Amino acid sequence: MSKKNNNNEKLMIFALGGVGEIGKNMYVIQYANDIVVVDAGLKFPEEDMLGIDIVIPDISYLTENRDKVRGIILTHGHEDHIGGLPYVLKHLNVPVYGTRLTLGLVENKLKEANLLGETKRILINADSELELGTTLKASFFATNHSIPDSVGVCVETPEGAVVHTGDFKFDHTPVNGQYADLQRMAQIGTNGVLALLSDSTNAEKPGFTPSEKNVGIVLEDIFRKASQRVVVATFASNVHRIQQVINAAEVTGRKVAVIGRSMVNVVGIASDLGYLEIPDGMIIEPEEVGKMAADRVVILCTGSQGEPMSALTRMARSTHRKVDILPGDTVIIAATPVPGNEKYVGRTIDELFRLGANVHYSGANSGVHVSGHGSQEELKLMLNLMKPKYFLPIHGEFRMQRRHAVLAESVGIDPDNIFITDIGEVVEIQGGAARKAGKVTAGNVLIDGLGVGDVGNIVLRDRKLLSQDGILVVVVTLSKQDGKIVSGPDIISRGFVYVRESEGLLDEANRIVSSTLQKLMSENVNEWASLKTNVKDALGRFLYEQTRRRPMILPIIMEV
Amino acid sequence: MSKKNNNNEKLMIFALGGVGEIGKNMYVIQYANDIVVVDAGLKFPEEDMLGIDIVIPDISYLTENRDKVRGIILTHGHEDHIGGLPYVLKHLNVPVYGTRLTLGLVENKLKEANLLGETKRILINADSELELGTTLKASFFATNHSIPDSVGVCVETPEGAVVHTGDFKFDHTPVNGQYADLQRMAQIGTNGVLALLSDSTNAEKPGFTPSEKNVGIVLEDIFRKASQRVVVATFASNVHRIQQVINAAEVTGRKVAVIGRSMVNVVGIASDLGYLEIPDGMIIEPEEVGKMAADRVVILCTGSQGEPMSALTRMARSTHRKVDILPGDTVIIAATPVPGNEKYVGRTIDELFRLGANVHYSGANSGVHVSGHGSQEELKLMLNLMKPKYFLPIHGEFRMQRRHAVLAESVGIDPDNIFITDIGEVVEIQGGAARKAGKVTAGNVLIDGLGVGDVGNIVLRDRKLLSQDGILVVVVTLSKQDGKIVSGPDIISRGFVYVRESEGLLDEANRIVSSTLQKLMSENVNEWASLKTNVKDALGRFLYEQTRRRPMILPIIMEV
Repeated sequence: MSKKNNNNEKLMIFALGGVGEIGKNMYVIQYANDIVVVDAGLKFPEEDMLGIDIVIPDISYLTENRDKVRGIILTHGHEDHIGGLPYVLKHLNVPVYGTRLTLGLVENKLKEANLLGETKRILINADSELELGTTLKASFFATNHSIPDSVGVCVETPEGAVVHTGDFKFDHTPVNGQYADLQRMAQIGTNGVLALLSDSTNAEKPGFTPSEKNVGIVLEDIFRKASQRVVVATFASNVHRIQQVINAAEVTGRKVAVIGRSMVNVVGIASDLGYLEIPDGMIIEPEEVGKMAADRVVILCTGSQGEPMSALTRMARSTHRKVDILPGDTVIIAATPVPGNEKYVGRTIDELFRLGANVHYSGANSGVHVSGHGSQEELKLMLNLMKPKYFLPIHGEFRMQRRHAVLAESVGIDPDNIFITDIGEVVEIQGGAARKAGKVTAGNVLIDGLGVGDVGNIVLRDRKLLSQDGILVVVVTLSKQDGKIVSGPDIISRGFVYVRESEGLLDEANRIVSSTLQKLMSENVNEWASLKTNVKDALGRFLYEQTRRRPMILPIIMEV
Repeated sequence: MSKKNNNNEKLMIFALGGVGEIGKNMYVIQYANDIVVVDAGLKFPEEDMLGIDIVIPDISYLTENRDKVRGIILTHGHEDHIGGLPYVLKHLNVPVYGTRLTLGLVENKLKEANLLGETKRILINADSELELGTTLKASFFATNHSIPDSVGVCVETPEGAVVHTGDFKFDHTPVNGQYADLQRMAQIGTNGVLALLSDSTNAEKPGFTPSEKNVGIVLEDIFRKASQRVVVATFASNVHRIQQVINAAEVTGRKVAVIGRSMVNVVGIASDLGYLEIPDGMIIEPEEVGKMAADRVVILCTGSQGEPMSALTRMARSTHRKVDILPGDTVIIAATPVPGNEKYVGRTIDELFRLGANVHYSGANSGVHVSGHGSQEELKLMLNLMKPKYFLPIHGEFRMQRRHAVLAESVGIDPDNIFITDIGEVVEIQGGAARKAGKVTAGNVLIDGLGVGDVGNIVLRDRKLLSQDGILVVVVTLSKQDGKIVSGPDIISRGFVYVRESEGLLDEANRIVSSTLQKLMSENVNEWASLKTNVKDALGRFLYEQTRRRPMILPIIMEV
């Protein structure tokens, strides 16, 4: 298949996102003048990225090499794999390849971003073969994941085959009958794999991840025992889970109301494209819930992460316009909290219990959720199917990548042939020999509202300071003639202390500003920069002594 | 024991902290004119309490009834049980009762707060009996917990005995030979328990919590296999764990360096009081670490929660003054992340792995940590030992209290006799009959620096706003004569956008402020409030359209 490399060209493999982190997956495979990109995801902000909405990869390398980029291959339709597309395509108009459900979800995004018309979208399936430029070919293999239509990619290069698993598990009893294509994976392995890039998410978890079907059994049991309404919150993109909710509703004689923007959206797209089988008359409008017998209704909604504005959170706080939780209702949170969301989810559970609901949630051995990512035995199975020469653990934080490397060693991969990389770090392969070969530009691009990249370290540092102890604005007007204080100082505080209860403190602060300025002017110091610095220092010192707080101080000195 | 209640007096039981939350434990038992308080803890701030250092209970009820408060009984020396004392004692000078280690830890705190001299501290042990006022008596029973010298309390009242378990597990092989006093608990149960207040922390966990001794076996094994230095981070207060680190060091021929302020503090107090057995010459100074053979050293330190300023975090970031982590070192994080800290701990683990350390941490079935709180079977055991008439699940968030109530029902407690309360909610018992009877003042008192209670909802709301999109200060000087603009508008922004990259936006913002003011003045609108509101609205609208952000806008209009 791959012909021997007879020239000076080399193969480069690197991630622009998705290694050393969970999120914003974007991997690059380049040979000579051909670049293929796998995925273009987003990440949710870290807790120190105050006010930031989402984070996407820095794609400078791609825009600088735009004439070489042959396209973006999407492995599946999750936000951490497709969510960055609208931003990427604005700067890089290249073809996008994806399976049917993936493209369906992408098209919706591109429509919102006014990019649908100008973006070339190419439908692939597990049997597709693509020529990408003059040196690269891509083929695919079906995988199991928590969304249908997920695929892995095999990119053939003159150096050999590079396989990217996408996100995967091995589910031997998949909900939709879409089996992982073990035969094709085995064939790829037989043909020879130069480098394997494989999903490290659950590399710390021993054993096998249970089948999605197990959740269906638990759901049906809970539905059957519930004497009133059942509310199920899950990830909107988990189409298999949604199918199982519908199946359980059908066998227990309930109708389903779909609530929450992204849930309505996904249910619409997935059922239009035939990925959801919904019996006629099964779906009811949220407005109809109140009119039906409680034991005939299921509410399928967003909010499994305790997100403040989501449907379930509003119901839990009794602020949802259409649905109230009543004592005796059953609520199923069919998801695990993403790290960082545990407290929000805990609070939602507490609020639901306080309303008298029976709440089933992950963690209490409830069986209402299984992961979409393979555990250690599945990762070893993938390694043994592919038998790669080189191995790059991807899609995970460093400790997960490292654990995955240990697993690879345990199945016989030469430790010298395992590369744990950081974003931008290039693995170069030439004449069959691989090495780390420097870095390309890579990083976080922060998106806040409409601004892309206009919030950086200084703005974030200021937000952090403001969030801790607030701000004091000090306004003084000085006379141009004699430098005397004409009006002020006035001190306005926000987020520092209750003004009413701290009058004494602020009065004293006022006196300190006045005396500092008077002293300086009596010494003929009158450069503004110096006046401001002195006011800041004196006031800052005083406030820290009195309160042990360090509010931001903004002196405004005017002259008239 | 308890005599029948023949008058109109009644027994009141309520929590000022510790129910519906994890932290700031404080429980009140009152009969007639006698009040006894159990514990006085602190809580770490929720993620929406920006800039807050710690949270303590609102003790208005106690200060309003100060002449009735007979004392504060401390069940053990953890921060969530004693950390609020310095603040409480400032307003309520009452005797404090505690076991030897508990009082040792308290004394250190009171010294720092200059309260040691004026506070009456009364040493108790498991055999003590206290007369508290004319109607209450207290006795104690030894429990197992993740700190030595923990006790439960039995308060005898004219209505009957009220038992407060404190934090507990049943460890049948305790590290220090301090067994839980099953016999005394059984005797209390035989005598009759009116109401049981029991620890709900692990009410969601099935089975038994493993013995602390199990951790010792794992530690020794890791120490033995480590070819270089071993670093162990754990909770400073976990004296049993510290003892096991010392034991493992001894049998593997290593010396121990203690690093981190609270770790040094606890090791000092616990060994002075005889709660730690440290062989002579076992402890070395941090400075000596570098001079010793790597396989002869253990570093015992703080930082098991990934706290930014802690010893382990500094080592992980290579910013610790005395200790570097070298490739091949072994690091053990012998603790579970407290909910909310998962990401910080994950980051520390990643950084340690990147430095080449072998990291053992909780969650990967590592056996390096066990909980100090009993699981479901232990909670049932306590219920069956005490056989209470009434049951109040305490020390937990609502879902844990609720689960604990379900466990109580399962062992035969009448569901009508189970009271899940919120802070301030009173359970009143008179003539043997219990009911919920209103609320006393209860809530969060926020401590920010030296300020106690001077930060409330408005300040926190402002900090939240400032943290999301920053602030714009708009300064304009108007002429007193004709109302024309004399200087400005000047716009100063912090935490909003990079000024250099957003000059156009800010110039346009400037024009909008000018034209808004000119228009108003041409219409003879010149009340400041109205000018300010109009500037705020116009500018806010413009910025939202342009950026989809809502910075705080602070207009400052001066007249000369």
